[in-house]
Amino acid sequence: MDLSTELRRLLPREAVIADPASLSVYECDALSAYRQPPKVVVLPRTAEEVRAILRLCHRLRVPVVARGAGTGLSGGALPHAEGVLLSLTRLNRILSIDPANRTATVEPGVRNIQIACTIGGNVAENSGGVHCLKYGLTLNNLLALTVMTIEGERLELGSQTLDAPGYDLLALMTGSEGLLGIVTSVTVELLPRPQAAQVLLAAFKRVEDAGNGVAAVIAAGIIPAGLEMMDRLAIEAAEDFVHAGYPLDAEAILLCEIDGHPAEIEAELPRVAEVLKAQGATEVRVARDESERQRFWTGRKAAFPALGRIAPDYYCMDGTIPRRHLGAVLARIGALSQEFGLAVANVFHAGDGNLHPLILYDANAPGQLERAEAFGGKILEVCVEAGGTITGEHGVGVEKLNQMCVQFTAEELEQFHAVKRAFDPDGLLNPGKAIPTLRRCAEFGALHVHAGKLPFPELERF
Amino acid sequence: MDLSTELRRLLPREAVIADPASLSVYECDALSAYRQPPKVVVLPRTAEEVRAILRLCHRLRVPVVARGAGTGLSGGALPHAEGVLLSLTRLNRILSIDPANRTATVEPGVRNIQIACTIGGNVAENSGGVHCLKYGLTLNNLLALTVMTIEGERLELGSQTLDAPGYDLLALMTGSEGLLGIVTSVTVELLPRPQAAQVLLAAFKRVEDAGNGVAAVIAAGIIPAGLEMMDRLAIEAAEDFVHAGYPLDAEAILLCEIDGHPAEIEAELPRVAEVLKAQGATEVRVARDESERQRFWTGRKAAFPALGRIAPDYYCMDGTIPRRHLGAVLARIGALSQEFGLAVANVFHAGDGNLHPLILYDANAPGQLERAEAFGGKILEVCVEAGGTITGEHGVGVEKLNQMCVQFTAEELEQFHAVKRAFDPDGLLNPGKAIPTLRRCAEFGALHVHAGKLPFPELERF
Repeated sequence: MDLSTELRRLLPREAVIADPASLSVYECDALSAYRQPPKVVVLPRTAEEVRAILRLCHRLRVPVVARGAGTGLSGGALPHAEGVLLSLTRLNRILSIDPANRTATVEPGVRNIQIACTIGGNVAENSGGVHCLKYGLTLNNLLALTVMTIEGERLELGSQTLDAPGYDLLALMTGSEGLLGIVTSVTVELLPRPQAAQVLLAAFKRVEDAGNGVAAVIAAGIIPAGLEMMDRLAIEAAEDFVHAGYPLDAEAILLCEIDGHPAEIEAELPRVAEVLKAQGATEVRVARDESERQRFWTGRKAAFPALGRIAPDYYCMDGTIPRRHLGAVLARIGALSQEFGLAVANVFHAGDGNLHPLILYDANAPGQLERAEAFGGKILEVCVEAGGTITGEHGVGVEKLNQMCVQFTAEELEQFHAVKRAFDPDGLLNPGKAIPTLRRCAEFGALHVHAGKLPFPELERF
Repeated sequence: MDLSTELRRLLPREAVIADPASLSVYECDALSAYRQPPKVVVLPRTAEEVRAILRLCHRLRVPVVARGAGTGLSGGALPHAEGVLLSLTRLNRILSIDPANRTATVEPGVRNIQIACTIGGNVAENSGGVHCLKYGLTLNNLLALTVMTIEGERLELGSQTLDAPGYDLLALMTGSEGLLGIVTSVTVELLPRPQAAQVLLAAFKRVEDAGNGVAAVIAAGIIPAGLEMMDRLAIEAAEDFVHAGYPLDAEAILLCEIDGHPAEIEAELPRVAEVLKAQGATEVRVARDESERQRFWTGRKAAFPALGRIAPDYYCMDGTIPRRHLGAVLARIGALSQEFGLAVANVFHAGDGNLHPLILYDANAPGQLERAEAFGGKILEVCVEAGGTITGEHGVGVEKLNQMCVQFTAEELEQFHAVKRAFDPDGLLNPGKAIPTLRRCAEFGALHVHAGKLPFPELERF
């Protein structure tokens, strides 16, 4: 009996997709440079159906790749040719809300209201965003997960309270990119909405000054609700697209949002302005009203599609560095842009040191995609050299396997594989993603770079 | 060659202790009901010495128990009769401080300035405290760990930035009670000191009202920097000891601290007062000045020793429950106190739902210690039944192994053991702690209690 037939014994007919035309819909996530249709797609509606699917796949030794909304940027939901693509979008119920405990329990297919992605995807990638500088990553806002192992065993990880005994498998599962288990429910913390928020825009003549401004704000003990940077190319593209009111003569701008009690905001904004002026800000503007505040953010949020208007394709990178190296690493990226002959725009979560260089290229021009990928890989290696990491929030997926060899020692990678075997000894969950084999690292020829040494000479002065 | 001789080849003579009189100093941590001298104590000064000790113990298959300041309350640092006690107190250097990145890197033996414990111990237990409602547990304030495995391999976990790729072994190591590896350096986040803080004291005629007051404050979207509860016995003992100015006619008091910008505090305190009055607070007092604020806290902090003055011994429990069940669970603990014939005082982190019932007993009265332990075990089971956990911040150690059988299913315990094997296949690190064997659970006869069902009938109405 073939796989689809077996699956149809467990699920309603329409929940099993095996015809090639329908399968092609699932052949990639948002890293569309990689495409591979799965053998079969399943669309369970309940945790028990998920369990039954996993047990079957475990028995038949069939690979399983989980997928939420398919918005992932590192190819984590790229299907396996011989495997099941397990779509969790129909597990989309809000199971309970408890205001006194300030928690909600939801299924993984529930959509994150701000964006298109699902909560399950947020858990799988430990997603961040504009506000995680103050409010933390996904992990910092989770209390509990229900997980099915590849053997179909149900694990309750974490608890409804602040702490849980035993090893922190909740954290281990979060950000594990579908390699350790399948999440079937998520208990999140609910945060009170801030009473008010205000945003300040600062313009700089030098990118480096803006980078140093970010470090100075944090060093001053200010915790912004968001601290974003855009460079000239991004400013121009955004301004041209949505008319946010950005200064067009700046090399970089910062958007610094403060939220909380109105009196606190009123007290903090002048401090931010003062710190940024001391770092060379040529203009500091507080949004005059809510509508201007929204407009400032619209420009930031529209920056990616805006850049899509000026280049046929872009490749969005994701790396993180200690804030004090922002200026130096941006200068290094500028130099690499010259070297690779591809323009790059920077729009990113500067407060976290989470870079998002967008490499502009033309996929129809022979060799440009490969050049963009090589450039991107180099940027990630620079992040590691600066004492940072190869991902801030997008995960490793298939995209950054080579850079994992740069980030980690052989001993560290071996420890990851040992943990994987503790959950999935046959390697059936999302095989080939997130953690490279030592053989692959040997083939890639990567040597682990000892972090924080800044071996590129132009950075020595920082 | 015997163990001490081998160790003396690796370490200076005075760093290896093997004479019985000196060993007895190390025979227990702060859970002094359990005592066991180790075979030998080692006092390394460097990570390389730690590595050499671990390699030797791994080669000889000798158990290793790590110890910080020995202030742990669950017996996590209880020595092994045939093993090495690895004291980390001489690894006490502050390695670096980076204000721009707001981080510091320290060795595990550095003392937490507030209290006697070490940072390494905080990591091993994922410690909490009064302020973790707003500022998180230890894990929420960590960026990176350097860890030596039992094989003497060095792992760099986490990163100097917000996120790191790969499985979250940083979180897995945190709170793992010395079972997975030995921490040799810790990178912590540095938080800006709040500009101001103020405390409000609220008195209640009924413990239940105070419990409901806690839930109501949180449900109102207020995030206090501390929200502590004390019941009548604790109030009386503290007042008699340090004259904190507590009302002696109350059944319970809450201390609610708000910190941040002075204007924010001024705006929040009346909201807290209003919410608590609506829940039946008979008196609400804001500290008139800094000296009264300090006095209110002195009473709270002196409550444990104050209770030590009215009973020969006390047994401090540690469990966590969803806040909405505070009133009901405290009533249940009161009923159990009658049943076991032992007085109990409650002084605890109410905002987190983290209970600290102190069972008062006399170790010299035959049977009282055993009765206190049975009572304590029962309290933890009530926490699990209420949808909570058997530890908030003190860990499992040897104390709560039986209750782990209540908290977790066999599948979950098996998963913990699988993770342990991924780090320490021979089970040499802190054997017999934190995670019970399935055999032990079978002997204990515990059945996993499905959390959140509140099977005790007097709670059904909540």
